[in-house]
Amino acid sequence: MTQSKVLISEVGPRDGLQNCGAVMPTEAKKRWIGALAAAGLREIEVGSFVSPKLLPQMQDTPEITRFAKTIPGLVVAVLVPNLKGAQAAVQAGADKITLPLSVSETHCLRNIRRTHDEVIEDARAIAALVKGTGPGRRPHFEGSLSTAFGCTLEGPVPESVILRCAERLMAAGCDEVGLSDTTGYGDPAAVRRLIRAVRGVVGAQNLTGIHLHNTRGLGLANVLAAYDEGITTFDSSLGGLGGCLTAPGASGNVVTEDLVFMFEAMGVATGVDLEALMATRSIVSAALPGEELYGFTPRAGLPLGFRPARAAGPAV
Amino acid sequence: MTQSKVLISEVGPRDGLQNCGAVMPTEAKKRWIGALAAAGLREIEVGSFVSPKLLPQMQDTPEITRFAKTIPGLVVAVLVPNLKGAQAAVQAGADKITLPLSVSETHCLRNIRRTHDEVIEDARAIAALVKGTGPGRRPHFEGSLSTAFGCTLEGPVPESVILRCAERLMAAGCDEVGLSDTTGYGDPAAVRRLIRAVRGVVGAQNLTGIHLHNTRGLGLANVLAAYDEGITTFDSSLGGLGGCLTAPGASGNVVTEDLVFMFEAMGVATGVDLEALMATRSIVSAALPGEELYGFTPRAGLPLGFRPARAAGPAV
Repeated sequence: MTQSKVLISEVGPRDGLQNCGAVMPTEAKKRWIGALAAAGLREIEVGSFVSPKLLPQMQDTPEITRFAKTIPGLVVAVLVPNLKGAQAAVQAGADKITLPLSVSETHCLRNIRRTHDEVIEDARAIAALVKGTGPGRRPHFEGSLSTAFGCTLEGPVPESVILRCAERLMAAGCDEVGLSDTTGYGDPAAVRRLIRAVRGVVGAQNLTGIHLHNTRGLGLANVLAAYDEGITTFDSSLGGLGGCLTAPGASGNVVTEDLVFMFEAMGVATGVDLEALMATRSIVSAALPGEELYGFTPRAGLPLGFRPARAAGPAV
Repeated sequence: MTQSKVLISEVGPRDGLQNCGAVMPTEAKKRWIGALAAAGLREIEVGSFVSPKLLPQMQDTPEITRFAKTIPGLVVAVLVPNLKGAQAAVQAGADKITLPLSVSETHCLRNIRRTHDEVIEDARAIAALVKGTGPGRRPHFEGSLSTAFGCTLEGPVPESVILRCAERLMAAGCDEVGLSDTTGYGDPAAVRRLIRAVRGVVGAQNLTGIHLHNTRGLGLANVLAAYDEGITTFDSSLGGLGGCLTAPGASGNVVTEDLVFMFEAMGVATGVDLEALMATRSIVSAALPGEELYGFTPRAGLPLGFRPARAAGPAV
């Protein structure tokens, strides 16, 4: 364990809200994103440039992106399903654009009605778009390997298929690839194995982030496994927002509050103020009444005598 | 990661029920313990030999211990607070006796009104009792280092104090020591550090088990850290039973269902049939209506195409 600090990428406003039945009002989103940034989060995935007909929860993404860009120092990340979405994201000034490629082609077809070839074709076009963006405004372009730890339609996806997808995304012009446990099928051994395998084909510097879910309670154990492998960016959502719409009761993303607590307790700096972070739950609760918020640390409180990593000076 | 199998020690009937407001009827306890053993659990902590006045939930421990002893192959573990409890435990035929020593002397005094010296004195007497038990009936005697990762009264406990407690327990005649995160203060770095430190003074063979809580959601991450250090016995409770009576909403022990899922997914054999294990939740729900059962795997179900370690033949 060598990394003295990690980057927590908050995906609640995108992956979380996208999977809520209710739509969070735009003003509440802005308050929430502002409070998250004020708590010390340096990267927030603020929305998804998808069709408002498909996902009304995301229809204000252009406005939210422009708002988030007014927050000093914040890396404003967005998801795009295709070239059209990427064009809108660039237009709105996003700092980071993620294109998901479901390694399960069955899932890819079912989810966005496109083959791997078609997604790779879009990756090439988005890479060209991004590279053509003016200096200082060029967004970072990540290709995310979705359903990397298994698919609810296909089951396990062969490693050779995943590695081929990773190679193709890099060849298409992505700045890096990410691993995404869309289905919550991952376990620590699989996380370690797949990180090593993907890094073997794309290079360690081109796989630095992971997106893990807590569907079966293994979220933080999987994070630890990834951290041990040298991963430095971890996606999570406040209150674990992002339970699957089609599986009520199944929790979603790794809970940001517990994730930050784990790293800070370990002496790994996140830059996040835990108390301020937990206080942002009230914004979500007020804007989405009835939505279940996960997280053990907010319920239990911090340990007596707890010292966060950032208060201890530079971590070693 | 080298251990191809681990031992799950189910503590629900002791640590779980001890912290429930309601008392589980004796017949339900028997049904539950029988079902847990039938699901493949090979060690169950069935109760605590404490004063029935203090803990009415545990008053049938002698009967439950004798019942559990009728289950072939099951290691019947019990907790004892003192020599008197150990005498009753030996009388009832327990296979494993655990004496907790809270490394926080403040907690020790508040909890059982005794100093470290007094507990160590009892450890000596229990060791003598155990050694004097007839051949084939001699129980295994563990000294458990409670509040090892911090105390709700003292905060962090100095490592030197913990190591001294470990040495004294071994010197008093314990067969081994265990680490217990009574308060849910542990994190993966602390787990690794303390396992190494304690093994440094008692030897690796004399620290093989750990008792972790999930109070702040880090339970399985802490398990993974301990597993990586070579720990082979993991305490947990079905449904995570064991939330603190004085902190409603704070979850208790590591959830057996999620723990078994994690290890089996990793290819580490537990010997436990997950479906049969999860089916025992209904016994608890029926006997303790209103008690919150934790666990993500039971809600989400098993992944498509999931193959448990035991079905894959001898793990490597």
